[in-house]
Amino acid sequence: MKSLKDYMPFILQPQNIARIEGDVILIGDRRAYPLSQEFVSCASVEDVAVAIETMVTQGGGPVRAAMIAILFLAGQADRGEVEKTPETFIEAKKRLQITRPTNTTMARVLERLVEIILKNLQKGKELSIEVNKFIEDFQKEYESYSFAMAETGAGLIEDGDGVLTMCFAETSFILSIALALEQGKNITVFSPETRPYLQGARLTAPCLMEVGADVTLITDSMCAFVMSQGKIQKYMTAVDIVTSDGWAANKIGTFQNAVCAGYHGIPYFPFAIDPDMTRKGRDGIIIEERNPEEVKMIKGIPTTRPDMKAYYPAFDIVPPHLIAGIITPKGLVSPYALKDVF
Amino acid sequence: MKSLKDYMPFILQPQNIARIEGDVILIGDRRAYPLSQEFVSCASVEDVAVAIETMVTQGGGPVRAAMIAILFLAGQADRGEVEKTPETFIEAKKRLQITRPTNTTMARVLERLVEIILKNLQKGKELSIEVNKFIEDFQKEYESYSFAMAETGAGLIEDGDGVLTMCFAETSFILSIALALEQGKNITVFSPETRPYLQGARLTAPCLMEVGADVTLITDSMCAFVMSQGKIQKYMTAVDIVTSDGWAANKIGTFQNAVCAGYHGIPYFPFAIDPDMTRKGRDGIIIEERNPEEVKMIKGIPTTRPDMKAYYPAFDIVPPHLIAGIITPKGLVSPYALKDVF
Repeated sequence: MKSLKDYMPFILQPQNIARIEGDVILIGDRRAYPLSQEFVSCASVEDVAVAIETMVTQGGGPVRAAMIAILFLAGQADRGEVEKTPETFIEAKKRLQITRPTNTTMARVLERLVEIILKNLQKGKELSIEVNKFIEDFQKEYESYSFAMAETGAGLIEDGDGVLTMCFAETSFILSIALALEQGKNITVFSPETRPYLQGARLTAPCLMEVGADVTLITDSMCAFVMSQGKIQKYMTAVDIVTSDGWAANKIGTFQNAVCAGYHGIPYFPFAIDPDMTRKGRDGIIIEERNPEEVKMIKGIPTTRPDMKAYYPAFDIVPPHLIAGIITPKGLVSPYALKDVF
Repeated sequence: MKSLKDYMPFILQPQNIARIEGDVILIGDRRAYPLSQEFVSCASVEDVAVAIETMVTQGGGPVRAAMIAILFLAGQADRGEVEKTPETFIEAKKRLQITRPTNTTMARVLERLVEIILKNLQKGKELSIEVNKFIEDFQKEYESYSFAMAETGAGLIEDGDGVLTMCFAETSFILSIALALEQGKNITVFSPETRPYLQGARLTAPCLMEVGADVTLITDSMCAFVMSQGKIQKYMTAVDIVTSDGWAANKIGTFQNAVCAGYHGIPYFPFAIDPDMTRKGRDGIIIEERNPEEVKMIKGIPTTRPDMKAYYPAFDIVPPHLIAGIITPKGLVSPYALKDVF
């Protein structure tokens, strides 16, 4: 049986997302890719939190980076280098969680992981072993979920389709394309660059090239026009949150593409590994606002007057009526049926 | 009576768009603004054509730059520095027209101007005087049309409105905002940066600041989300072409904002000084494709792998049913009523 390693491009290989090497944590630097393959070296939970905040890793990356940070801390606690107390881990968890207010997957994984640590602390157990087991189990589950979702995704893509994506939909989307290609389907993918942070130009389009897809880079302003030319048959993205009633938050721009897809009769299929059944409706989603200075520059080069006012909501929200179906590890689920399935 | 000079920001003052100074043509360099105020010096029609092609000036700028180029050539012909023949001017006209396949205003103004030159050539007249008169009349008409459109535009903007624009809608839009502010209306303007060429960040937002508007820069991916927050009540842009049956072409991104405006019940009002009654329907519009390399970089900095495929349609097309009314020198006209009015 094939594994993710057989398909994934460089930056999506787990060891290249985050790993412990000697006495540091190495985090794959997605800011440098695809022009170079670099790692940022972290020596503490705080370093990892800052790395997440400064976008060294993003998308699904922070989940693994945060778990590895906790594993690192567990090792330090086991060796007596930090206090082996609940507070040590509760503080670490909180610090990591606030790095990404919109990404609830990381928040919830950290809750589960630290709960296990607290139990083992009471029992006076070695922590690293338990944390390591948690991460391995998580990775195994992630792999099986990714294949399940990608099989659904690949099945929705028909021979001759053009597929639009947005931002960096990572493993399940890249794998969907890889599997569709393996099935002999002739497909094209359009990747919007995803301003201000250019995840589409830097990550999605190069990863799709790595898996052998015919990918075309466009600006975020071109999506509807490309649809109007008949070049798009499916719209697929990741999501950062899906609520129990089918509202989906993802990188800013996802919503307007969904509106335009609806206008053109193109179905929108977001990938959601883990719908958040504790949240409900548009108001259940907190939209992270990032530093507006980032809107005024590109790769550090200013695009306008330094005294210009700017606004940077990092995510937007797609209502359920614009979602044709959510690709989940349990198959394609209507946004209105999540509560029956999860 | 106030004139455009009393309102216009630096780069929209006619003499800063293009002028003859000594033995060269100076063209205001919109690529350098707002970080500096520079001019490109041209010594021939070919130089001006290249300046237009390389985006030294854009939007409405090429119309004036092309007329000034013809004035320059007329002077050379009058002084015997170039052949004073129809071919000289027909060649110049063709060279200038092909710099912008989508902009029919320039094409048509050049047709009229060169027609006048050919008549005066037959009569053996001094050409510069006639060309200069044509440009002055054009400027006077442009000024009166701009005020007529801006009064309509300002009238549509209500106290408390948020206004979304796209790309650089130039004189009539900037003047609409200036007049609305003068009328004491409290308004905010959102200017999308307009990738790949960043006209919104570089031109629109700074010009709006110059006229004292409360302007916020966003990325092109944020338009629909800002609408969904209730921050936008009007959507206003320039157009490069409006056909006789109300199809409007403008900078890429205009169409998807119009779709999203329609979705949110926000009226879209494009400004059209000069509907093109010789064209009809979507198919009557040629969409200029520019060098896809520009999509792969920002201000010369690469954003992705050098071997990435990219696509750069420079304009898109809005269907009449998404247009609430076209702001023309003859008032607000339904896209379906153009043939009754023009």
